[in-house]
Amino acid sequence: MTQTDNRPLTVLNNNLGNNVIVELRYGKEYRGKLSGYDPHLNIVMEDVKEFIKGEKIREMDKALLRGDNVVYVSP
Amino acid sequence: MTQTDNRPLTVLNNNLGNNVIVELRYGKEYRGKLSGYDPHLNIVMEDVKEFIKGEKIREMDKALLRGDNVVYVSP
Amino acid sequence: MTQTDNRPLTVLNNNLGNNVIVELRYGKEYRGKLSGYDPHLNIVMEDVKEFIKGEKIREMDKALLRGDNVVYVSP
Amino acid sequence: MTQTDNRPLTVLNNNLGNNVIVELRYGKEYRGKLSGYDPHLNIVMEDVKEFIKGEKIREMDKALLRGDNVVYVSP
Amino acid sequence: MTQTDNRPLTVLNNNLGNNVIVELRYGKEYRGKLSGYDPHLNIVMEDVKEFIKGEKIREMDKALLRGDNVVYVSP
Amino acid sequence: MTQTDNRPLTVLNNNLGNNVIVELRYGKEYRGKLSGYDPHLNIVMEDVKEFIKGEKIREMDKALLRGDNVVYVSP
Amino acid sequence: MTQTDNRPLTVLNNNLGNNVIVELRYGKEYRGKLSGYDPHLNIVMEDVKEFIKGEKIREMDKALLRGDNVVYVSP
Repeated sequence: MTQTDNRPLTVLNNNLGNNVIVELRYGKEYRGKLSGYDPHLNIVMEDVKEFIKGEKIREMDKALLRGDNVVYVSP
Repeated sequence: MTQTDNRPLTVLNNNLGNNVIVELRYGKEYRGKLSGYDPHLNIVMEDVKEFIKGEKIREMDKALLRGDNVVYVSP
Repeated sequence: MTQTDNRPLTVLNNNLGNNVIVELRYGKEYRGKLSGYDPHLNIVMEDVKEFIKGEKIREMDKALLRGDNVVYVSP
Repeated sequence: MTQTDNRPLTVLNNNLGNNVIVELRYGKEYRGKLSGYDPHLNIVMEDVKEFIKGEKIREMDKALLRGDNVVYVSP
Repeated sequence: MTQTDNRPLTVLNNNLGNNVIVELRYGKEYRGKLSGYDPHLNIVMEDVKEFIKGEKIREMDKALLRGDNVVYVSP
Repeated sequence: MTQTDNRPLTVLNNNLGNNVIVELRYGKEYRGKLSGYDPHLNIVMEDVKEFIKGEKIREMDKALLRGDNVVYVSP
Repeated sequence: MTQTDNRPLTVLNNNLGNNVIVELRYGKEYRGKLSGYDPHLNIVMEDVKEFIKGEKIREMDKALLRGDNVVYVSP
């Protein structure tokens, strides 16, 4: 089996414009539209809702999340 | 003895399409099909179940796990 | 979909001169005008207010924030 | 004295096929056969037993341990 | 808007000889004259006062602060 | 004054075959013969005694210690 | 103002042979003669006294301190 469409950066690229969940360390979760990324896994999202330990904390029109803190991105 | 088929990235490559367990820091565990990876050990899984300290938390169709947090991958 | 205007560094560049929120680790938040950055996500802000866990701690004319600690930048 | 056979990666190479103990951070210990490694100290083991703080947790046919968490490898 | 004078290293360079506040992780703060830096944000200060959680701990004629621990530098 | 014989890697090289103390993070200490190293400060020791917070935990014929965790090496 | 003699590595170089204080993370402090360094801020000291939270713990003829843990070096 090859991983043609499932390399990590390809998965991000294929989901531009889609809603994703980004889990960061420390129990932080961001839900919104994936609109950009770079090879460090820095992530740009739009219409973002921030949750900490399941509780909604903040809504943001746009946010740039630093890749260092990413635990997972789920399309 | 040589390690021809047991270099770390070769082990990942040989298990594309197989079920694996990925243990991350902080007691997080992900079970599902390995469908992609890169040299940073970023991992793409499909049909993923997330467990925290043994309790099932979430099911995801697909997830990209950041390699920095990996403790081990077991095929 | 392409990410022409939504690459992480492009988002910073497009917001030079605008007010942003920078969230750092440890519950620290900085609000003020984005006036500079570099590819490490080091950030220069002007007219900055520092909040820790929601409480205003300090006002600064200018501050250079180290990118390593950034959780997110929101324009 | 020279270190011809005792450079770190040489020690790993000379122990391919031998039983080793790999201690990771957070009190985790893995015992089994060393079957692969790379220069980041990522380690592949076979017939692995995982211990946490001295208690056996899990047995695995194969595991790829991320080098970042290694405290020591003892042949 | 461009960031000609507000790139992170330019801000350090423009403040050589000026008094600055350097906040490090763990609630440590250093106040004194900025007299040197490098691209890692390693910082040399003179006539430095060290504060931990607001309490003055030590005075030093000169100190080289490692950039890794910097939270912010404020001129 | 120059540091001809006191560059960090030279100090390691000059002590190959000698007994050293290696202190790692988390209060771990290793005493034994220095038999190898690399530029990442990965260290190979022989006839090693491991102490945690002053208590002897384990004796090992050989151990490869990952450099990331080193606090100091004392010849 | 220029920083000719106050670049971080220059400050270390100019203090070879002098007594310095090296503060590491976790409240560890080392006092002794600076006898070597490298660009990673790895530091070699002689006639070193180790203090933890102000209490003297150990004296060493020589010690190589890993640069990663340095908070500051004060000549």
